[in-house]
Amino acid sequence: MARRKEFKPEEALEKAMRYFWQYGYNDTSIRDLISGTGVNFYGLYSVFGDKRGIYVNSLERYCQVFLKELNTAASVEATPAEQVRSVFKKVAEITLGDNEGLGCMVCNAAVEVAPTDEGVAEIVTQHRTNLTAIFKKVLSSIAQTTAEIEQIPDFLATQVYMIGFLARSGKDVVQIEQHIEVLYSLIDKK
Amino acid sequence: MARRKEFKPEEALEKAMRYFWQYGYNDTSIRDLISGTGVNFYGLYSVFGDKRGIYVNSLERYCQVFLKELNTAASVEATPAEQVRSVFKKVAEITLGDNEGLGCMVCNAAVEVAPTDEGVAEIVTQHRTNLTAIFKKVLSSIAQTTAEIEQIPDFLATQVYMIGFLARSGKDVVQIEQHIEVLYSLIDKK
Repeated sequence: MARRKEFKPEEALEKAMRYFWQYGYNDTSIRDLISGTGVNFYGLYSVFGDKRGIYVNSLERYCQVFLKELNTAASVEATPAEQVRSVFKKVAEITLGDNEGLGCMVCNAAVEVAPTDEGVAEIVTQHRTNLTAIFKKVLSSIAQTTAEIEQIPDFLATQVYMIGFLARSGKDVVQIEQHIEVLYSLIDKK
Repeated sequence: MARRKEFKPEEALEKAMRYFWQYGYNDTSIRDLISGTGVNFYGLYSVFGDKRGIYVNSLERYCQVFLKELNTAASVEATPAEQVRSVFKKVAEITLGDNEGLGCMVCNAAVEVAPTDEGVAEIVTQHRTNLTAIFKKVLSSIAQTTAEIEQIPDFLATQVYMIGFLARSGKDVVQIEQHIEVLYSLIDKK
């Protein structure tokens, strides 16, 4: 009898996450996940459940990893305006390099999966709340009006998804940085 | 022998477009399109081709219909700033009412289909160019710097997709209008 192949769930999940990130939910099959992770069906199923289970785990991992990076970027010792810039610089970094063309997995999930899956919609909403909280914290020391306290942070969170959208639309580093510069110039002159 | 059922291609395409707009490409089957349009496979195939053919025709129809509406909105007798506001008001209108929760079909296509389909990617790029041209024309009489001539129109086009993204994420009319107000206040004070 063949010995059951062992695998590291974290490594398999990282690979599954990248697969879903690139191809989305509907265009990824269990067969793709088996070949992409190198783990057989029973191994994946025993830890993560069915295809949707693997997807939900992947999306949660994505949120956890990148929110942590954005929180770190927001915590630089600098003025609030520079902290905002630092967050967007990190967003641009995440959407380029090895991840070029993938965009933002949460943005992809919001468009493709959330409209017909309540559980995924909840993860997307929670991510947005957490992302908005980063900007609220950054701007808390200078925000005075309701718009500055509530609406500007929400607007900035939306712009993060927009960077992901631009990256997935094949925009290159120059075009993405240009978008961030326009955004920054608008916020800065306000 | 049963008489071959006749159908109006424009009406069938309108229904197919709404189906793809709501469920995306991968989650829509030929069976869905047959039941959604009330036209049999041979009827659809003879006019539009296979599933991808129906999708491409639907997406092109979407672009044509809504760019025309936005062009009309941009042509009101008003200041450039008010013309920009008129375009975004129309975008908000399109994403609400009967279309609530659907978002923007081009935004959906950019996220789900364009990364793996060159033909669809070209339609998405062309739509972006046409959308940017609307804002370029509106701002042409007051734009002075390179940013105002090139980058602000491009930024505004991106914001149109963002409204579609917000609508598809389940944001309601109040939240969408709030986003537009923040955008408008930023542009206005610049």
